[in-house]
Amino acid sequence: MHSFKELSQLFATHFQQKHFPAQPSNLYEPCDYFLQIGGKRIRPILTLLGNELFDEINKDAFEVATAIELFHNFTLIHDDMMDAASLRRGMQTVHTKYNSNIALLSGDVMLIKAYDFIAKIKSEYLARILQLFNKTAAEVCEGQQLDMDFEGRENVSLDDYIEMIGLKTSVLLAAALQMGAIIGGASEGNCNHLYQFGLNLGIAFQIQDDYLDAFGNPEKFGKEVGGDIKQNKKTFLFLHTLEVADEQQTQQIEQLIQENPADKVLQMLHIFKECNVDAWANELKEKYYQIALKHLDDIAVTSIRKKPLVELANFLIERES
Amino acid sequence: MHSFKELSQLFATHFQQKHFPAQPSNLYEPCDYFLQIGGKRIRPILTLLGNELFDEINKDAFEVATAIELFHNFTLIHDDMMDAASLRRGMQTVHTKYNSNIALLSGDVMLIKAYDFIAKIKSEYLARILQLFNKTAAEVCEGQQLDMDFEGRENVSLDDYIEMIGLKTSVLLAAALQMGAIIGGASEGNCNHLYQFGLNLGIAFQIQDDYLDAFGNPEKFGKEVGGDIKQNKKTFLFLHTLEVADEQQTQQIEQLIQENPADKVLQMLHIFKECNVDAWANELKEKYYQIALKHLDDIAVTSIRKKPLVELANFLIERES
Repeated sequence: MHSFKELSQLFATHFQQKHFPAQPSNLYEPCDYFLQIGGKRIRPILTLLGNELFDEINKDAFEVATAIELFHNFTLIHDDMMDAASLRRGMQTVHTKYNSNIALLSGDVMLIKAYDFIAKIKSEYLARILQLFNKTAAEVCEGQQLDMDFEGRENVSLDDYIEMIGLKTSVLLAAALQMGAIIGGASEGNCNHLYQFGLNLGIAFQIQDDYLDAFGNPEKFGKEVGGDIKQNKKTFLFLHTLEVADEQQTQQIEQLIQENPADKVLQMLHIFKECNVDAWANELKEKYYQIALKHLDDIAVTSIRKKPLVELANFLIERES
Repeated sequence: MHSFKELSQLFATHFQQKHFPAQPSNLYEPCDYFLQIGGKRIRPILTLLGNELFDEINKDAFEVATAIELFHNFTLIHDDMMDAASLRRGMQTVHTKYNSNIALLSGDVMLIKAYDFIAKIKSEYLARILQLFNKTAAEVCEGQQLDMDFEGRENVSLDDYIEMIGLKTSVLLAAALQMGAIIGGASEGNCNHLYQFGLNLGIAFQIQDDYLDAFGNPEKFGKEVGGDIKQNKKTFLFLHTLEVADEQQTQQIEQLIQENPADKVLQMLHIFKECNVDAWANELKEKYYQIALKHLDDIAVTSIRKKPLVELANFLIERES
């Protein structure tokens, strides 16, 4: 059995392989460029963790892990186009460095290459994994569409937001784990608990991400604080504030959004604090975190095997106290 | 056994099913819209033909045929974006009717849904068909990239063009046939001959398409004649003309491209005729058509079973005399 860190290193080494042919270079070079921007590679490691929870790592887990990482990068290339983002991790996005047509087609071919790795696995679970991969991939697109829809919509509830986040980010974490479990020969019940562990952990992680964007230490967080507020993003904090704000606060919020004053972030943070959203967000995160752990607990394997997954959860989620 | 026309009707009925969920409507309604624009549905019928060449039609052939038609429509949605085309078959393209972000994401999800139909087929040939589907899909992207590359390149040879056309359009016809053959239980040798039949027929068809754009009867062709010339497209005719033109003709061509006179189409057609490209194109088409038929001939089944494929070839390729 491997620790989370060891699996991370194992995958990094495996992923250094060349994934694309050399020609046509205008199609495949942007793919290589984007992959070397890097990332934490959390999702493929989840597949290895899911496999090793039930059995020794099978080489098929590496194929599926690679497919998942390529799929994730395909979504980033196309999401960057939709968001008109010029930078990712401090590097130029594909449509900025090359052009929109190249980013469109390179993203397409990266998605297709993801399926090429799925096609390599043993036929005994190929159909099941392919179906889960397809379902998840479509859900991620649905989540991205809902996210875009919400930008232009006034009446977004907290439940709408949780549904969107679940689709846009959590289902891929959950499915990455479950695909590993399928390869490891897990029962359907265990597979479902592992999926729910991933789903709820993903939502807890997003609550934390929204929280840190408002209240985080900028040096530690690695992003400018208040970015979501500047962009009027409908986050967990913003939506809850709207739900609990009194009339005066609601008016203030509407004014801040319309008038965009220089101290908008400070003023909005002040309202957030008046409404106690910081404490509320921590409680909500803790709630989803505990649901995740409960599902991990319910998986019928010895607790020693679950240790790397607990490590992962602790790595992703900063706990109060 | 069914005629080409009967299979066409069978597929049309089958394809009327609902392929997408209702929500999120901004994601799936554009997919439904684009599919109802219609088309000849040649590619899925090829899969049914490929199947029935060797055995009774298996319901898996309909799944694969649906996947291929969805894949083809995904490429059209994204190609329309890359070409900034506002109309297709007289209807608004997706990015024109909705917007670029919606066209991007609807195309993505249509590709993913294509794989969902592949995932339904029997496990005995799932891996083989998935691998062929992936290879073909990547090749179609490569062909599209080469096509875009050629626009900005001066030195495109006829061989470059044939390679590009092969990737961009013919491999999908060839693979559609071969997937049907695999489902029909064909031997590898027969599969390969059928693939080559499709590949060469596709190239003959493209030569004809380029020819008709220049010399076709506009009423019969259904498109404005000379469209390729107006857009300075590097077609079979144009590339061959450049290869055989004398110095004076070459100068004339360069002038026409630079100056874009009102009678450019007439003048270019005049040079085409001086260089005898019309006769040359018909010979080249005939050459590929004959290669295609030779491969069909070499398939080890009784010739009566090949009749629908001969009908198809005759439907696609207009013969002189």
